[in-house]
Amino acid sequence: MFRRLLSFDEAKQLLEQSFSSVPVGEEQVSISDAYDRVLAQDVVSPIDIPPFSRSTVDGYAVKAADTFGASEDKDINLRFCGHVAIGEAPAVTVEEGSAAEIVTGAPLPDGADAVIMVEYTSRQGENIFVRRPVASNTNIMAKGSDILKGETVLKKGRILGSREIGALAAIGLTDVTVYRRPKVAVLSTGGEVVELGTVLPPGKIFDINAHTLSAAVVECGGEAINLGIFPDEKDMLKRALEEALASSDVVLTSGGVSVGPKDFTPQVVDSLGKPGVIISGVAVKPGKPLTIAVVEGKPVFSLPGNPTSSLFMFTVFVRPILLRLAGRTEEEMPKVKAVAAQKMFPARGRRTFTMVNLAYNKDGTLLVSPVSTGLSGAITTMTKADGFVEISEKQQFVDAGTEIDVFLFKKLKKP
Amino acid sequence: MFRRLLSFDEAKQLLEQSFSSVPVGEEQVSISDAYDRVLAQDVVSPIDIPPFSRSTVDGYAVKAADTFGASEDKDINLRFCGHVAIGEAPAVTVEEGSAAEIVTGAPLPDGADAVIMVEYTSRQGENIFVRRPVASNTNIMAKGSDILKGETVLKKGRILGSREIGALAAIGLTDVTVYRRPKVAVLSTGGEVVELGTVLPPGKIFDINAHTLSAAVVECGGEAINLGIFPDEKDMLKRALEEALASSDVVLTSGGVSVGPKDFTPQVVDSLGKPGVIISGVAVKPGKPLTIAVVEGKPVFSLPGNPTSSLFMFTVFVRPILLRLAGRTEEEMPKVKAVAAQKMFPARGRRTFTMVNLAYNKDGTLLVSPVSTGLSGAITTMTKADGFVEISEKQQFVDAGTEIDVFLFKKLKKP
Repeated sequence: MFRRLLSFDEAKQLLEQSFSSVPVGEEQVSISDAYDRVLAQDVVSPIDIPPFSRSTVDGYAVKAADTFGASEDKDINLRFCGHVAIGEAPAVTVEEGSAAEIVTGAPLPDGADAVIMVEYTSRQGENIFVRRPVASNTNIMAKGSDILKGETVLKKGRILGSREIGALAAIGLTDVTVYRRPKVAVLSTGGEVVELGTVLPPGKIFDINAHTLSAAVVECGGEAINLGIFPDEKDMLKRALEEALASSDVVLTSGGVSVGPKDFTPQVVDSLGKPGVIISGVAVKPGKPLTIAVVEGKPVFSLPGNPTSSLFMFTVFVRPILLRLAGRTEEEMPKVKAVAAQKMFPARGRRTFTMVNLAYNKDGTLLVSPVSTGLSGAITTMTKADGFVEISEKQQFVDAGTEIDVFLFKKLKKP
Repeated sequence: MFRRLLSFDEAKQLLEQSFSSVPVGEEQVSISDAYDRVLAQDVVSPIDIPPFSRSTVDGYAVKAADTFGASEDKDINLRFCGHVAIGEAPAVTVEEGSAAEIVTGAPLPDGADAVIMVEYTSRQGENIFVRRPVASNTNIMAKGSDILKGETVLKKGRILGSREIGALAAIGLTDVTVYRRPKVAVLSTGGEVVELGTVLPPGKIFDINAHTLSAAVVECGGEAINLGIFPDEKDMLKRALEEALASSDVVLTSGGVSVGPKDFTPQVVDSLGKPGVIISGVAVKPGKPLTIAVVEGKPVFSLPGNPTSSLFMFTVFVRPILLRLAGRTEEEMPKVKAVAAQKMFPARGRRTFTMVNLAYNKDGTLLVSPVSTGLSGAITTMTKADGFVEISEKQQFVDAGTEIDVFLFKKLKKP
């Protein structure tokens, strides 16, 4: 078990080396349930799109050569040979000198190689008068011109939104192979926390972390399994962790990692399997007691009990891993640049994360300042924050007037 | 029934006047299921947070006055009077001249008004030696200092992310009142479209719109009810629309609004109730045949059959309405400014929406250009696009080198 406090960068690097976060697996889902899932395989089209050459206008399907020389002054007379409806195989073949009525989207009949728009024609009984020439392939979307059978339509890793689902439907897929959502077991520890829905006994507080962390897991494309609160009892905690490891891909605990006499979570986690605890404390603020273990290839994050600390440590350590386990390789937290409204200091020697508010000043400059509840670890700090800043332990301070990156919790409203 | 083609702005305005899009209703959900839902009521705390004054450090609970005058040179001797554990009501009262051992998060015992950090003390048996003075309220988070009983914690309209769910848990709520998801019935029409999962008969295409539109509904916080494909038969379509209206808040149809002989959807929609069709065609490209009706207070959007047109019309007409019905008042589409890489023209007299690609050039300028499939209405245009631009019918063109807003489909990657 490590004893030295690692720097933030060392901890991140060690975690990367100790745990290879590749997608946890694949599953088939119906395209009706595929919204916001991630493709686990390239999607190859089993058909041509369009599946047949079709008209892109209402008019007449013709042999282009038959229209050559037509003009407003000198129309060309073609013989009406039938019509082609949308959604049906054409019953007609266009012979030299003839024309078939056709609507937008209907299949081009055999023999025709162009469609002339109805505006450039007139009809009297069986006679179609064509007033303009058309070149071959005019007003036709050729079979396979959009997607060829065998062509890759969407690549592995693509997140499925409405447009992507449209492409899957176009090629007729009912199901699609996506990455399985990583299962994340969430356990709370600590004698002071109780389940919601009770009258709070003296000295107790409600279990906040189980709920913030579960929501944060869903936010990253994971599936949260809330296992509840475990009392400060080693054997029960160990059994709970063993079950959590057996049934999930990642385990999160919160609480029980501070310095109090009953905080034995790291010890218990270390006893679960190899390599065990790899990171025991990180030079960050908040979140210093963060402990990370890898047990038989699965990561176990022991997050602090304080809800704000716990959520920060989730955001900077757990979130990137979880996104990769979910196959979501591309998602960064949204950020903006803003000007520090006041001097901000890192905690001595520790990478510091500070909840902040953003505001535009009169000249339109976006200003950033720490959330001013004046209370460390307050719940209202979380709810009032627009985002957070990361201040390096190598910086003495961020001076007022300096530009700094702000990671956003929600979309920024313009002034 | 309107016959004049409305401009885009007129159509938007008429829709606003004809349909008041207020949230469709409320429901109670468990906070475990509340992620990404929208609060329908202000949330007021039933308890103080913290529920008791608690220590923010490990140390000794004392009467501050007892420590006055303490220094490194001249410590003050207090009598050990017991300890306070986390999660329990203190069994001890701090009398003058005494100190109780306390851990971070434990309730402050009666009689104490400050906590001195363990670092500034030493202990020999029952004697606690204090080397620094503490002021009253030092290292204490007072009962109710974060949230007062009766205080509004989160306002109506707030979207519930992990931080907000943390606040709900902190005050002990198991359930929360959120806006109901608007139910959106999705019907496809047209003799050419068939359900997925079959071998495509000649002349047919798969139903794309039901799937793109259902996903787009989910994207806006709605619940999609895919009612399937209705053939070009008036009575069946009318019955289907009546059932759709009875069971949903919004109805979307696609297809059947072009100029072909069988396109009677607008007529059928108009016969369903008052006021009926309010918008019959809009000067936009693509999507001109868009028809919008209001029937007994519910909007019915008849979208074009072409998947790209249909999705554009959803984005610009249906999405803003749906977000408001879902109580999501604040969400705009993400957009960036980019420089036109080539001249872009609106269709004559029509508000024009064009799928575009973004790319950084060598000097870091973000350039925007139309997706170049060369095919109108291609599926691949949708999947290859990074976003779209809106070109006003009042503009002659967007000149190459001009800056223009690009609405984004996905997050932008930096160069």
